[in-house]
Amino acid sequence: MSLDRLIEGIIKTKNPTVAGLDAKLEYIPEFIKEKNFAEYSYTLEGAAASMLEFNKGLIDALCDIVPAIKPQCAYYELLGWQGMKTLAETIEYAHSKGMYVITDGKRNDIGSTMEAYASGHLGKIMVGDKEVAPFDGDALTVNGYLGTDTIAPLLDVCNKYDKGIFVLVKTSNPSSGELQDKLLKEEDTTIYHHMGTMCSQWGESLQGKYGYTGIGAVVGATYPKQLTELRAAFPKIFFLVPGYGAQGAGGQDIAGAFDDKGLGAIVNASRSIMCAYKKNNYDEKDFAEAARAEAIRMRDDITQYLPKF
Amino acid sequence: MSLDRLIEGIIKTKNPTVAGLDAKLEYIPEFIKEKNFAEYSYTLEGAAASMLEFNKGLIDALCDIVPAIKPQCAYYELLGWQGMKTLAETIEYAHSKGMYVITDGKRNDIGSTMEAYASGHLGKIMVGDKEVAPFDGDALTVNGYLGTDTIAPLLDVCNKYDKGIFVLVKTSNPSSGELQDKLLKEEDTTIYHHMGTMCSQWGESLQGKYGYTGIGAVVGATYPKQLTELRAAFPKIFFLVPGYGAQGAGGQDIAGAFDDKGLGAIVNASRSIMCAYKKNNYDEKDFAEAARAEAIRMRDDITQYLPKF
Repeated sequence: MSLDRLIEGIIKTKNPTVAGLDAKLEYIPEFIKEKNFAEYSYTLEGAAASMLEFNKGLIDALCDIVPAIKPQCAYYELLGWQGMKTLAETIEYAHSKGMYVITDGKRNDIGSTMEAYASGHLGKIMVGDKEVAPFDGDALTVNGYLGTDTIAPLLDVCNKYDKGIFVLVKTSNPSSGELQDKLLKEEDTTIYHHMGTMCSQWGESLQGKYGYTGIGAVVGATYPKQLTELRAAFPKIFFLVPGYGAQGAGGQDIAGAFDDKGLGAIVNASRSIMCAYKKNNYDEKDFAEAARAEAIRMRDDITQYLPKF
Repeated sequence: MSLDRLIEGIIKTKNPTVAGLDAKLEYIPEFIKEKNFAEYSYTLEGAAASMLEFNKGLIDALCDIVPAIKPQCAYYELLGWQGMKTLAETIEYAHSKGMYVITDGKRNDIGSTMEAYASGHLGKIMVGDKEVAPFDGDALTVNGYLGTDTIAPLLDVCNKYDKGIFVLVKTSNPSSGELQDKLLKEEDTTIYHHMGTMCSQWGESLQGKYGYTGIGAVVGATYPKQLTELRAAFPKIFFLVPGYGAQGAGGQDIAGAFDDKGLGAIVNASRSIMCAYKKNNYDEKDFAEAARAEAIRMRDDITQYLPKF
């Protein structure tokens, strides 16, 4: 169990970024929706088929320069089971193009239930005498509020199939501090820092070959100070960094997330890539070209502050 | 937005319990699986069809005596998008039988993403000129680690469609104390208690007619002391209480979750109801009868400690 396959993708593309594929219907170009609604009429099937076509176009445009995608489960569930079918098909398509997939589900539950999430999203299950991979992501984001029970059952699945996880530590949203920044009495540290300590302990025996364990952490780009603090405190925890672009953070804010080799983090952008065609006045038919241009701009914005690798 | 519809179901059936529908494949009677695998062969379709048939049998057996079901998302995701189709169909079937549905997803994310979860699981979305309810649950469990951002976007959807939510406060699993029991320095209280305070604030303006707000809390039956503490501290928060039965708690452990009218909580049991036919040596064809007998036993075990309502 490690995040090594992800890190290798980053090194190969010289790009520590991940494209969030979380399309709301309004993000999808009209010509795609028109075509699919003509075929399926105004149904969740039609919406989900539009999302899949949009995702495939984005993956085609990004797969040689961006190492990973991060589908956000919420936007697939928003389109019902038909959307979840698009999630499975998007993951399969990204794999066929050599991309790593971080399924952003922020799942959490008691042990036996976490096992089901792990097997469903990262592992395989036996159906009669057939082995099937229900969603087959490469890593899953999880919430650690329930403690070790949330994490332990994932380790078996991750070990068996060489998958990884990212635990929420300091999230990118404006109200993340309400709970996460509170000071713990005995530990005299913040909750988010303590969650980092827990991640560190959970990952101890799962060392990968680049110095990072198989248990990463989600740390928001919108909190540069905490990013730097956590990077220094937890040198073996790889960071998934949301909040770049539409949420407000730029390349300079994120530099503290990386180690002195320029590794240690992957930065996500969703809307700014998916909707680049809108922002930069492309013809909507050129959405993929616009996404590629934005992904390159983002890569360069971030890597300019980092040592070459 | 309230939990009044749930409370009315409890009063009508005189039963403050909810049946967790979380079937692993091994819980489903062989004759159901054989039939569906014969039709679909060893596929996720066949597994998901088996789960749906099992769920329908359970719902038929329980709908006049148990007010609600609680499908655990993990076990539906475990069967891929085909499982999520079974989730949607199970919810629809439970509604047709007059039951309330608590979708146990423990979802959590930043504001815009939570909006997608809320609309997908509790609300409706526009697809072209058609309004569609993707999953249509009545309440959703959520994790509050991200703060108000996690909750605020749910309120609009819940208000519009009269739905409710349950926030994780003190969970039933053995390691729940690792983080949740930690003392906060400034507040001089535990994290779980502080989460209760946050729920209380979030629910303030959402008062229902039975004295409870639309924002409930998940508090594990396995921690009777904390249940009693939280009941006393938060008289307006309705509790969803997992951990009865297979996780070890009995009727007496749970009495502290209720108010002096016998309301204020709903107790979940999953495995003990679904697998009652195994435990009590029923013929597997009589799984529904066994589930009904166990649901009645559970109801009586819990209500013997409560005032009549």
